[in-house]
Order: sequence, then C-alpha cells, then structure tokens
Amino acid sequence: MKPLDLLQQSLRKPVLVELRGGRRIRGTLESYDQHLNLVLSAAEEQDPSATAPTPRPGLTLVRGDSVIFISP
Amino acid sequence: MKPLDLLQQSLRKPVLVELRGGRRIRGTLESYDQHLNLVLSAAEEQDPSATAPTPRPGLTLVRGDSVIFISP
Amino acid sequence: MKPLDLLQQSLRKPVLVELRGGRRIRGTLESYDQHLNLVLSAAEEQDPSATAPTPRPGLTLVRGDSVIFISP
Amino acid sequence: MKPLDLLQQSLRKPVLVELRGGRRIRGTLESYDQHLNLVLSAAEEQDPSATAPTPRPGLTLVRGDSVIFISP
Amino acid sequence: MKPLDLLQQSLRKPVLVELRGGRRIRGTLESYDQHLNLVLSAAEEQDPSATAPTPRPGLTLVRGDSVIFISP
Amino acid sequence: MKPLDLLQQSLRKPVLVELRGGRRIRGTLESYDQHLNLVLSAAEEQDPSATAPTPRPGLTLVRGDSVIFISP
Amino acid sequence: MKPLDLLQQSLRKPVLVELRGGRRIRGTLESYDQHLNLVLSAAEEQDPSATAPTPRPGLTLVRGDSVIFISP
Repeated sequence: MKPLDLLQQSLRKPVLVELRGGRRIRGTLESYDQHLNLVLSAAEEQDPSATAPTPRPGLTLVRGDSVIFISP
Repeated sequence: MKPLDLLQQSLRKPVLVELRGGRRIRGTLESYDQHLNLVLSAAEEQDPSATAPTPRPGLTLVRGDSVIFISP
Repeated sequence: MKPLDLLQQSLRKPVLVELRGGRRIRGTLESYDQHLNLVLSAAEEQDPSATAPTPRPGLTLVRGDSVIFISP
Repeated sequence: MKPLDLLQQSLRKPVLVELRGGRRIRGTLESYDQHLNLVLSAAEEQDPSATAPTPRPGLTLVRGDSVIFISP
Repeated sequence: MKPLDLLQQSLRKPVLVELRGGRRIRGTLESYDQHLNLVLSAAEEQDPSATAPTPRPGLTLVRGDSVIFISP
Repeated sequence: MKPLDLLQQSLRKPVLVELRGGRRIRGTLESYDQHLNLVLSAAEEQDPSATAPTPRPGLTLVRGDSVIFISP
Repeated sequence: MKPLDLLQQSLRKPVLVELRGGRRIRGTLESYDQHLNLVLSAAEEQDPSATAPTPRPGLTLVRGDSVIFISP
C-alpha cells in the first residue's frame, strides 16, 4: 500500500491532522487529492493554548502543503 | 468531490482563512484558482493581538501559498 | 473574475500588501506579473515596531513569493 | 545503496522520524514513496514538552516534506 | 513596465534590499537575473542590532530566493 | 570538481551535517543522491542543549532539503 | 556580468557566506554550480554566540538553498 492509498482507506473516518506552526485539526476525512489537500467535515481546531477546541461548521479545506502528518 | 471543488461550492459565501504566521482573515469568497489564490470581499483580518478585527475595504487577494486551511 | 485579474483592476490604485515575517507595505500598484511580483510607487513600509512608516522613494519591487495578501 | 533504498530495508522495522518544528515520531515503517511520504503503524509522537509519548492508533501518514531525518 | 524591467532601470543605481530573516542590505545594483539574483557593489548590511552598518568590500551576490522587496 | 563530486570523495568518511532548525548530525557518509539525500552510519545527533550526543544505531537517512552544509 | 558569473571570478578567493537561520561561514571558494551549491576550503563558521569561529577541516559543501548572500 502506497502512502496516499492510506487516505483512501480513511475516507469517512475521523482523522487528526498536524499542521505547520503547531496547529492541529480534527475532523472526518471527506476527500483528498494527490497534493494532500484534504476536505474535513465536523472539523475542530485543537488549539494548544485554548481550553476547548474551536469547532468549524460545514466543510474545511486543508492545504496539503501545510500538513505534517495525519493519523486516525 | 475533490478538495478544490469545495471552493466552487463556497463561492459568494463567508469563509474563514487561516494563513501562515498565525494570521487569520474572514470574508466572502468571490473567486479562486487552482493555486488556492483567493479573492475575498468584505475581508477582515482577525488579529489575535488586537481587540477588534481590521476591516479591509474592497476586494482582497490572498496568495494561495499562504493558506493553511479554509472553513466556512 | 480570476484572482490575478483583481490586480489588473487595482493598477494605479493604492494597495496594502502584507508580507512574510510580519512586514506590511503600502503604495500605488504600478505593475505586476503572474508570479505576483509587484511594482509599487510611493511605497511606505508599515513597521509595527516603529512610530511612523518608512517612506521609500521611487519604485519598489516586491517579490511575489513574499506576499501573503493584498488589499486596497 | 542509494538513500531511498535504505527505506526499502527498513520496511516493517521501527523507525524514529525527526520532523520540522522540533517534532519527533516513532513507529513501524509500513510503506513509503519517492517523496519520502511514510506510513507508520503503532506511531507515537515524542513530544519534548510532554512527560509521555502520545500514542497514535492505526496507521499514520507522514508527509515527506516534513521529514528531516529517519533513523532506526 | 513589467516588474523585472524595474531592475533594468535600477542598474548602476543604489538599492535597498530587504531580505528574509529581517536582514537588509544596501548597495549599487550591478547585475540581476530572472530569479532576482542580484549583484551589488559597495554593499553594506544594515544590521538592526548593530550601531553601524557592516561594509562589504567588492561585489556581493544576493540569492533571489532571499529577497522580500527592493527599493531605491 | 563540482560541488556534488565532493560527496563522492567523502564516501566512507566521517562528516558533520548542519541541518535546519539548528540541528547537527555527525556520522560516516555511506551514500548520497543528487538531491543531497544522505545515508549516514554510526550517526550521532549533536544536540546543543544536551550534554552528550544522542547516538543513532544502524543507518540514518537525512533528507537533502534539510541540509545547510556538510563538512568533514 | 550575470550574477552567477560573479562566482566564477571569486574562485580560489575568500568569501563570506550568509546562511539561513543567522548562520555565517567564511572560506575559500573552490567550486560552485548553478544551484549556488558551493565548496569552500578552510571554512570557519562564524557563530554569533561563540567567542571564536569554529574551524572546519578539509572541504565544506554548502547547499545553495541555504545561501542568503555571498560577499568577498
């Protein structure tokens, strides 16, 4: 299984995405492309300096260049 | 739906764009291209160190390379 | 209107350009290219740590790679 | 042996991956591609500011652009 | 006039070059190429933390990727 | 001798590799490619904040993009 | 004279190379390529936080991507 095939298996499942600059976003993976651009539903930013996550309504587009790693 | 198609659905709707360097800008998505360059109307920069957002008159062009994620 | 067409409409008009590293420059847009390289006249750097902007005589060339967003 | 061939030999073995921004992740290498995108199983982020590693269930996709070095 | 044509007009004239990382260098523009690589004569680094600029004898080559903006 | 030919001469010899983010790694150069990806044996990370280097067993793959300079 | 031709003239002469992250290295230019990869002999890192430069024996390979500017 090539690395990007892992995203195919993660469709419709919750993912935790680590981003540049220490940011972290959690949501359900709805779509991706070969640049690792991602669409997440029910996304919540996990702000380490905040006491609660910041919920994002609707669909969130994450730019692939910002991604460090993605885990379930 | 491929990630960039999400932007097609977001046209004329409010978006919140997280940018590099901790910047955040809110506005109505008027246009985009495949590099994630965006045109926003009624944009307001959300400066975490400021007490009120900085409104931007007219149309704002956001360079795609600066985008981390885009949510409604 | 595609994002870069916005710059065509902004020619000869004042723009505020946010740059990497927290820099900000204001001036009149005289020219641009597809890499978002910009030529500004009567440019003034807006230094957040300075009490007054630093005026730049003549024409200033801004490298497109440094641009985060451009607003009127 | 070319550098990327080393990853072929590391398949199914534990690796320690140093990432940009001072992050470090440990896991078993399950897959890779020529961009150094990696799939790790049983991954644990080694957070220098935390007392214990943060375990990641399932498979983790590490974006090659974020990798600084990989060791056993 | 396209942005890079501005450099043609600046040949043999003094320029102030803002660089990444808060660096700033002043000198006479002797040459450039399409990547914005520059050759400066009589260059002086303007170190914000120093009381006097650091003069550079001979010709200085500035890598285009490091340039943020160039003004007279 | 072109720059990358220097690496050919350094094969099987100790090298000190300076990396982005202030990291430094020492080891024996076992392999390289044209992207400056490196394989080091008996690698030791030289952590400026640690009292002793962190030894890395086996072979370490250093991503070329992370390299600043390489010396004997 | 195009910018990279300056390096041809600097062969076998001392150069001071400013690098990303505030690093600075001094040495004799022995070779270069079009990516600004450099080979320096008798290189010494000029560490602003150290009282004396760190000498590097043999030949040092500097990755072009790390170079900000080069002066005599």
